[in-house]
Amino acid sequence: MTFPLDTIFYVGEAIGVLAFTVAGVLAGVRKRLDAVGVVVIAFLTALGGGTLRDVLLDRRPFFWVAHEEWVWVVIVLGITGSIFMRARHFEPTFRAIQWPDAIGLGLFAASGTQIALDAGSTPLIATLMGVVTAAFGGMIRDILVNDIPWVVASYQLYAIIAFAGGWLVWLIGALGAAPALAVGIGAIAITLTRMLAIVFNWQLPNWRINDHTGVINLPN
Amino acid sequence: MTFPLDTIFYVGEAIGVLAFTVAGVLAGVRKRLDAVGVVVIAFLTALGGGTLRDVLLDRRPFFWVAHEEWVWVVIVLGITGSIFMRARHFEPTFRAIQWPDAIGLGLFAASGTQIALDAGSTPLIATLMGVVTAAFGGMIRDILVNDIPWVVASYQLYAIIAFAGGWLVWLIGALGAAPALAVGIGAIAITLTRMLAIVFNWQLPNWRINDHTGVINLPN
Amino acid sequence: MTFPLDTIFYVGEAIGVLAFTVAGVLAGVRKRLDAVGVVVIAFLTALGGGTLRDVLLDRRPFFWVAHEEWVWVVIVLGITGSIFMRARHFEPTFRAIQWPDAIGLGLFAASGTQIALDAGSTPLIATLMGVVTAAFGGMIRDILVNDIPWVVASYQLYAIIAFAGGWLVWLIGALGAAPALAVGIGAIAITLTRMLAIVFNWQLPNWRINDHTGVINLPN
Repeated sequence: MTFPLDTIFYVGEAIGVLAFTVAGVLAGVRKRLDAVGVVVIAFLTALGGGTLRDVLLDRRPFFWVAHEEWVWVVIVLGITGSIFMRARHFEPTFRAIQWPDAIGLGLFAASGTQIALDAGSTPLIATLMGVVTAAFGGMIRDILVNDIPWVVASYQLYAIIAFAGGWLVWLIGALGAAPALAVGIGAIAITLTRMLAIVFNWQLPNWRINDHTGVINLPN
Repeated sequence: MTFPLDTIFYVGEAIGVLAFTVAGVLAGVRKRLDAVGVVVIAFLTALGGGTLRDVLLDRRPFFWVAHEEWVWVVIVLGITGSIFMRARHFEPTFRAIQWPDAIGLGLFAASGTQIALDAGSTPLIATLMGVVTAAFGGMIRDILVNDIPWVVASYQLYAIIAFAGGWLVWLIGALGAAPALAVGIGAIAITLTRMLAIVFNWQLPNWRINDHTGVINLPN
Repeated sequence: MTFPLDTIFYVGEAIGVLAFTVAGVLAGVRKRLDAVGVVVIAFLTALGGGTLRDVLLDRRPFFWVAHEEWVWVVIVLGITGSIFMRARHFEPTFRAIQWPDAIGLGLFAASGTQIALDAGSTPLIATLMGVVTAAFGGMIRDILVNDIPWVVASYQLYAIIAFAGGWLVWLIGALGAAPALAVGIGAIAITLTRMLAIVFNWQLPNWRINDHTGVINLPN
């Protein structure tokens, strides 16, 4: 039984899109966007990073044009998710968004890196493309709702894990492993590291010198 | 006497650009941007959506590069409009922006959809490109002046009308009508529906459960 | 001894990237972004404008892909700059950012204009591409940290100097001078004019009719 690379990528993309769509719907509902707004923010969160990567690499068609089902998934999840949460007066916490987001981070960073390597990018550019794929959607999401993007201001280990994981994907491939294996290991490593960072609240060194504990808690 | 498709598109584009430029100038003046800022916001409002559509569809040259007169129109209207409004202490209301905006919405959504269909897009992608053409400029305008984009947070029927109208453009064309006819009918249908939505304050279901009336008034 | 055009452009690009990186690091530190955030904002400030220009002109590879050293410069300066400023409790003022920024403005506007002219753009489009190259990075920087972009709301002479300087680059070239000479003169003219505008606080006519002096001071 073989798992061709395209299938691996497709399944990974599916999980990543689902995870980021859920994260986007939660963010839109928390900010009380209307139904159109929830779909737009879910779309940008889930597909914005990969779209920018494809524009930067000059790849056409976009992955969501080639796989139009993602667009339907985002639209349907955006509408049903917002109706469901409204009906149940469900108030998603910021922390609840973190878990699906960690899965999306790993899958998008690893696959984005590999896609850029396949397109001939150097390791540095490819890793940056992985970070763009994984983190740009969330940046746009935060800018849209008028927040300073969490990814640049939270002191959490987030983009930096994606960056390190991209180098891991490149290294494994450079050692001779199949790309699908490199992406799989990279994605798992990024997601697990990110989950550990959430659990133990690992942080970047911070500036807030008035904070006596030296720890910044996750907003809830 | 014939009206070739290019001419129809050109005239529609002219009206749409004028309408969105006026909407952009009004928004910039309300936010007290300087003269450069009014021109920039007018440019982004009028030409930003079509530019993103062209980037996504990989079309070159951009429509405002092929028709450089739009750029001059935006620059001249931006400067004269801001001088005039300043001299008269004219305070444009939000509602005043809505009417030219409705015309731009119809023309840009319908023509954007048809341009994407001509480029080989599926109906779903083409409709989304129509929405991007019509609504992205306004999103960028609001982000630039640090507002949550009205299009995702107003509970007004706006992007959803453009979305429905895009499907109408596709349907009319699929039934065998000439593209110019499809665009014309689609543009009129979108603009009229949007104007009715303004007049009757039609809204998306809203979350604001503390609001006893269930109605959100347009900001003025 | 000859200075081929590529070398001139390369040196100019180097100085511009350094100047804008410093401006970006200062802005990120002032807003208390984390280390990743400082690198991201430095990257966008220094390389964002040229990237958008290349996307709009459909040029590949991007200048920072062709010259990967810029990416390393931005990463290293971003990290060391934020460590240094944190260790010294250094509080950069807004005015301190203005001087390197003026150098970047001149170099990026002049070289961006010439690059667009080389790509076949008309003078108007080329000048706009110069303005995009020089000013878009700063706009994105401000949007990222949730400010209304200084370039559209400060009443300072900034983008308009870049715009005028772009026409100067075109004019000198049209009179028969070598492109490198046109870029050099244009860059110096823009930078000097901008520095004079800072020193003498030259301003665009302003709207703030309650301001008795008619002068808006630079924020410090």
